[in-house]
Amino acid sequence: MEGEATRVMVAVNESTIKGYPHASISSKGAFEWTLNKIVRSNTSGFKLLFLHVQVPDEDGFEDMDSIFASPDDFKGMKNRDKIRGLHLLEYFVNRCHEIGVPCEAWIKKGDPKEVICHEVKHVQPDLLVVGCRGLGPFQRVFVGTVSEFCVKHAECPVVTIKRSAAETPQDPIDD
Amino acid sequence: MEGEATRVMVAVNESTIKGYPHASISSKGAFEWTLNKIVRSNTSGFKLLFLHVQVPDEDGFEDMDSIFASPDDFKGMKNRDKIRGLHLLEYFVNRCHEIGVPCEAWIKKGDPKEVICHEVKHVQPDLLVVGCRGLGPFQRVFVGTVSEFCVKHAECPVVTIKRSAAETPQDPIDD
Repeated sequence: MEGEATRVMVAVNESTIKGYPHASISSKGAFEWTLNKIVRSNTSGFKLLFLHVQVPDEDGFEDMDSIFASPDDFKGMKNRDKIRGLHLLEYFVNRCHEIGVPCEAWIKKGDPKEVICHEVKHVQPDLLVVGCRGLGPFQRVFVGTVSEFCVKHAECPVVTIKRSAAETPQDPIDD
Repeated sequence: MEGEATRVMVAVNESTIKGYPHASISSKGAFEWTLNKIVRSNTSGFKLLFLHVQVPDEDGFEDMDSIFASPDDFKGMKNRDKIRGLHLLEYFVNRCHEIGVPCEAWIKKGDPKEVICHEVKHVQPDLLVVGCRGLGPFQRVFVGTVSEFCVKHAECPVVTIKRSAAETPQDPIDD
């Protein structure tokens, strides 16, 4: 007889190469690692909590072709973003459903590193799993890494999962 | 049917307060977290690898009362150190045996942070669990933390487990 399930939060984002609804290589890696190495066959012992943080579209480039004539048009834009995020989460939730691992998934807007740490405070998972690109120190200066920030600031144990060399795209900044 | 067990390396050290053979508060915390949150009831799905790194006694203070008259006397000193380390590991191995989790344990000498990363390279665990004292930035400058070094340099996923506030001794540098 086991106590309450171990709650593992997995931060997921979209692919920089393929865009929505495709998950980034590092998100998929973090997820598969969690299933294969931690959950294993003990599907009832764990609950996965998928958090997707959407970065507000600063330049609005994606909406250049849209015509905004009423407040509802802006609502439409926001809904479209949200739907994209939902399709991303669908991938993870479907996989969990197939395997029989209980899960929850939700979307937030903002700066991913800040929002992840804020949600950790609120949700209090037992473990936060974050994928990372495994960039060198030189590249990190320009890119900034969500995982490093979470390791320092998240109020729960954090594990970062680097992509394998085989999965790393030609430009390692892609994901 | 599951594949090979998930191999979790747990770095353990002696208590700064009680000394050998007592384990430090943070080592015990890291170990209990691994059992309660990761292994859970799936005892055959995991193998725990306990590594204890002994710091060579630089000032030799502990051996001030010893008389060294032959090379064998030095051997005796080294053996005594090793036996202390073995008693520390016994605690963890016994606990695993009680619960039925397969494990291995071994001792190395050297700078803990360097040796842990070296052993990770050699042993290639799926996860390294390191306890930490959860010191503030000011204290960290003087103490240096093994866990931070491992997060940056170990070639496997690393999770650091902070002591709870309730477990933290009056002087947080103690462990």
